[in-house]
Amino acid sequence: MLIAPIMSILALAFVVYLYFSIIKKSTGTPKMKRISDAIKEGSLAYLKRQYKTLSIFIIIISITLALALNYKLALAYVVGAIFSILAGFIGMNVAIRTNVRTASAARKGLAQALPIAFRGGAVMGFCVVGLGLLGISLFYYLYGDPSIILGFAFGASTVALFARVGGGIYTKTADVGADLVGKFEKGIPEDDPRNPAVIADQVGDNVGDVAGMGADLFESYVGSIIAAMIIGALVLGPSGVLLPLVLASLGVFASLIGTFFVRVKPKGDPSLALNKGTFSACGLFALFAFFLIWYFDFSIGIFYATLAGLIAGIIIGLTSDYFTSREKSPARKIASSAQTGPAITILTGFSTGLFSTILPIIGIALAILVAWYFAGIFGIAMAAIGMLSITGIIVAADSYGPIVDNAGGIVEQAKLGLKVRKVTDSLDAVGNTTKSICKGFAIGSAALTALALFLTYSQVAGLKVIDIMNPYVIAGLFIGAAIPALFCALTISAVSRNAFRMVEEVRRQFKKIPGLMKGKAKPDYARCVDIATKGALKELALPGVLAIISPLIVGFLLGKEALGGLLVGSIVTGLVFALLMANAGGAWDNAKKYIEAGNFGGKGSNAHRASIVGDTVGDPMKDTAGPSLNILIKLMSIVALIFIPLIIKYGLL
Amino acid sequence: MLIAPIMSILALAFVVYLYFSIIKKSTGTPKMKRISDAIKEGSLAYLKRQYKTLSIFIIIISITLALALNYKLALAYVVGAIFSILAGFIGMNVAIRTNVRTASAARKGLAQALPIAFRGGAVMGFCVVGLGLLGISLFYYLYGDPSIILGFAFGASTVALFARVGGGIYTKTADVGADLVGKFEKGIPEDDPRNPAVIADQVGDNVGDVAGMGADLFESYVGSIIAAMIIGALVLGPSGVLLPLVLASLGVFASLIGTFFVRVKPKGDPSLALNKGTFSACGLFALFAFFLIWYFDFSIGIFYATLAGLIAGIIIGLTSDYFTSREKSPARKIASSAQTGPAITILTGFSTGLFSTILPIIGIALAILVAWYFAGIFGIAMAAIGMLSITGIIVAADSYGPIVDNAGGIVEQAKLGLKVRKVTDSLDAVGNTTKSICKGFAIGSAALTALALFLTYSQVAGLKVIDIMNPYVIAGLFIGAAIPALFCALTISAVSRNAFRMVEEVRRQFKKIPGLMKGKAKPDYARCVDIATKGALKELALPGVLAIISPLIVGFLLGKEALGGLLVGSIVTGLVFALLMANAGGAWDNAKKYIEAGNFGGKGSNAHRASIVGDTVGDPMKDTAGPSLNILIKLMSIVALIFIPLIIKYGLL
Repeated sequence: MLIAPIMSILALAFVVYLYFSIIKKSTGTPKMKRISDAIKEGSLAYLKRQYKTLSIFIIIISITLALALNYKLALAYVVGAIFSILAGFIGMNVAIRTNVRTASAARKGLAQALPIAFRGGAVMGFCVVGLGLLGISLFYYLYGDPSIILGFAFGASTVALFARVGGGIYTKTADVGADLVGKFEKGIPEDDPRNPAVIADQVGDNVGDVAGMGADLFESYVGSIIAAMIIGALVLGPSGVLLPLVLASLGVFASLIGTFFVRVKPKGDPSLALNKGTFSACGLFALFAFFLIWYFDFSIGIFYATLAGLIAGIIIGLTSDYFTSREKSPARKIASSAQTGPAITILTGFSTGLFSTILPIIGIALAILVAWYFAGIFGIAMAAIGMLSITGIIVAADSYGPIVDNAGGIVEQAKLGLKVRKVTDSLDAVGNTTKSICKGFAIGSAALTALALFLTYSQVAGLKVIDIMNPYVIAGLFIGAAIPALFCALTISAVSRNAFRMVEEVRRQFKKIPGLMKGKAKPDYARCVDIATKGALKELALPGVLAIISPLIVGFLLGKEALGGLLVGSIVTGLVFALLMANAGGAWDNAKKYIEAGNFGGKGSNAHRASIVGDTVGDPMKDTAGPSLNILIKLMSIVALIFIPLIIKYGLL
Repeated sequence: MLIAPIMSILALAFVVYLYFSIIKKSTGTPKMKRISDAIKEGSLAYLKRQYKTLSIFIIIISITLALALNYKLALAYVVGAIFSILAGFIGMNVAIRTNVRTASAARKGLAQALPIAFRGGAVMGFCVVGLGLLGISLFYYLYGDPSIILGFAFGASTVALFARVGGGIYTKTADVGADLVGKFEKGIPEDDPRNPAVIADQVGDNVGDVAGMGADLFESYVGSIIAAMIIGALVLGPSGVLLPLVLASLGVFASLIGTFFVRVKPKGDPSLALNKGTFSACGLFALFAFFLIWYFDFSIGIFYATLAGLIAGIIIGLTSDYFTSREKSPARKIASSAQTGPAITILTGFSTGLFSTILPIIGIALAILVAWYFAGIFGIAMAAIGMLSITGIIVAADSYGPIVDNAGGIVEQAKLGLKVRKVTDSLDAVGNTTKSICKGFAIGSAALTALALFLTYSQVAGLKVIDIMNPYVIAGLFIGAAIPALFCALTISAVSRNAFRMVEEVRRQFKKIPGLMKGKAKPDYARCVDIATKGALKELALPGVLAIISPLIVGFLLGKEALGGLLVGSIVTGLVFALLMANAGGAWDNAKKYIEAGNFGGKGSNAHRASIVGDTVGDPMKDTAGPSLNILIKLMSIVALIFIPLIIKYGLL
């Protein structure tokens, strides 16, 4: 009964321990400190403005919820939003303090730098699971009704929308802005301090990849647990409500132990270290889950269902890695095709992305079948729990990426020399792999969570059957299938528009600030951060409204069956598009890096130029549109779930 | 009772009339004749080889059908394949005779050239509807059982697979091969006779756009009529079987009259002429349909259902035109973004394509709802009939495109001068619009036909309900959603691979044939045609097998509910991807043409170079992968329908 709050407090205590173990490390030279402070300042400026807009949004929705449904739900909503914000705030604050310490430790070598960076990431990871679990248990012990806790998930979704979609637009705005003017027009290298957008770019890594990914997985984590609790209550009664909570707690514990396996010898392989951590967490969780289910005499089928989800998660992660890694043939084939110019580079990358969708989807389909076979509809929800059990260490490994990326940038800007840069580069190479694994994991878990939420929806809506021969369901499916496409169109064009504003500003600074190119004057970093921030929050409005309003429109006009069709339609195409964009984007990115490592003519060759085109195309796909789809499909399901009582009462049909 | 065979014979008589009215026109100078003969030779060479491979395929499948199901079905299959081949063969043969006559008439002016080109296209259009209607009535009067006629549709599907997918790979292979070496490496203009791939390129226009599109719509036409007949038999009895046939016959008649509205004055607007033809056919068909349904005392709801399909078809066509036309803002926005380089060109075009999916899908969803509201499940099938009623004139207007494209090529190669080229260019500009409208129409009708076939499948399989909360259905939906992505990946990479072979050959000829660049020696056109042909047929195998085998695997392993899910999953994502690829591709194409018309720096500018990248990326999307999806979704539904008795008998579940 008490294991969930205990484990969540343990996770948060671990965060405090990590924080103090990081903060006592050296921040290096004063110059390094200055750069790090600029990143810190920019990140906090972004967060501050985001929170301001966000809080207005949260107030409006919570009042709506309180008036239209009930005040308990509204309370859960507000707390869910605050907890997600808190996780993001703490995680990012520690991440931006860890980057400079990682850079400083890199001067001593790999074995010193890796654990610091990983610990920095682990703060985010354990904030996500600790606060998620704490919030859910809090409301469960307060109200005893899992459907009230849905408000908590909705709050998490709202924050995820801002953090992931807004952060995604922000990060690519800054990236494209920095590259287009700096690299192409002015010919200065990446991360050069003369570039006015360089700080915005590094801030982007934090707000997009740390805070955005954290909020995304916070939403999946919370959503899947609550969905399983609601279905568990219907299927197994009280014990079915507690089981998901307890299993999730064991996952936290397994992840926590897993972090201690992340160590590397001076000349060791850092990617091996991270993999050891992840896989031992998986193994431990499976062991714990088996004993729990056996000891408390649950059906062993529930264990198989949970395991199926965990394995599907691993398959998706490994597929993403295969299709995007610089060591594997798909990215190398793209690199080779870059020799014939940008058009074939785009086509090869695009078809790589398309290819990459099939295996994860078959994996998810099999997991669904296995889970259902062994444990029915509850099994499918438990598969989502299984996949998300290791969220702690997955987010840790993912947040490690932007930390070492930032560390590399600080090394470059503080001119610490080639040897140090080599250490951060080798840390960064691993960061890319963990990033793509985590991306695949985030997509798979979003799909499974959305599916669990959809099944919960169908139960709560009292739908005995949703028949795809019913024209309302068909219409819902068709419209649902088009929404991810529309959402991608909106987010991609948002990046283009916002990047354009950024380019103008960077050009203006190079023109108007005398001595900037010669390094004699400092650019106005803050203004670039400000433009990216304002633009991102503005551009977020339309896709955000679309995600919230489309299930309501379809629900009220076409009824609850059509709404079910809409959810499923958006989940399936959302999944296909998310995988396509993440993997095509990752493959283009690594094809470019493979060429930059000296293959097919290396830097400055025609192949390199073509690969840059591929990378630029892939950037908003993999970092904005693709991840935003995770939010879209979950948010739509949660909105449907929350508003179904009103739809039943006031709907046209 | 006899209206269908009478109307089909009328359509074929019209074809004969058109043929003689075309063939008596002048073929121009001997040089023009020579060029036209080379195109003819290449096209026939392609067809011959395709038919050879195809016949082996047809024999194997028909024997399988005869042994596993029954010989009547096998017979219908063989005849369906032969009729589709016949339509393609006649249509293409006339098209390749019309191009040189159009070029010759262009010397006298627009008013002379347009009717010839349109009549050439009309041959294909009326072959499709005439032979389609003839075959269906033949088998209906022979066996009286619409489910036997399904074999006819399956035969048409097999040919469509070869003609559309194989033709699509062929045409882009030749196009990319000709452009990459000719335009970029050697710097010679488009359609230059020194380019060894120039004939293959023009052949490609015919085999891809004329024969491929014809076979695609032949399949939709036949499939939708048969689906409506089967459902009609279940819902209304014998009169429900005849009604679709009779309505389709009226559509043929309306199209036939519509062709007489296609006329233009010497300085007139050729696009207006084609639109007049199409819209008068629509209006007439609506009128005829209303009187028929009213006179024979059918429920008026059936008329509304038919009308809903027709209107949805028009919406889709107009949307495609809006998103791809050079006169409208989307293509111009892409052209403007080309000034910032290829990456943003790709992103803008890609998001344009994504945007373009939403309206047609809402249109289809509404058509489904309206059709069902007024006439139940039969109404949905009748909506497909309504959309396809004007197939005759739509295919005519579409086949007009490659004819005038070829005519332009002949004018260029025969050096007839700028004035004549201007005439063919203005004809060609219209060809592009009709092409994109027809592409949208082909996609919409494929989706509606596939949906009608799916509903027929569910009836034949005896499925009272296909519940999307059933895990088998969910698994089927997920896998079905991934198949279009995989199919696109296969076809796009097939083009890359095959184009690579072509590029090698063209390079080899420029190197090995002395005097070629100076125009003193003739290139070996036939070898290029041969390479593109062989490669296309080879590359076709894998996607073709995937389309046929995936419904069988899912059906036999996971059961008929899962198969239903698979079909719907593939229809919805297939539709989204088909619209995305067709419209993005068309928009890139026209953005390039807009720049070439002198905007944003015109030919040779940076914007132009970037727009060429967009066009090259779009080419295999819009001409290979996109249209192939039409075939995929219909073929999968037909395979499911044909093999459902075996799946019920021998399936694992």
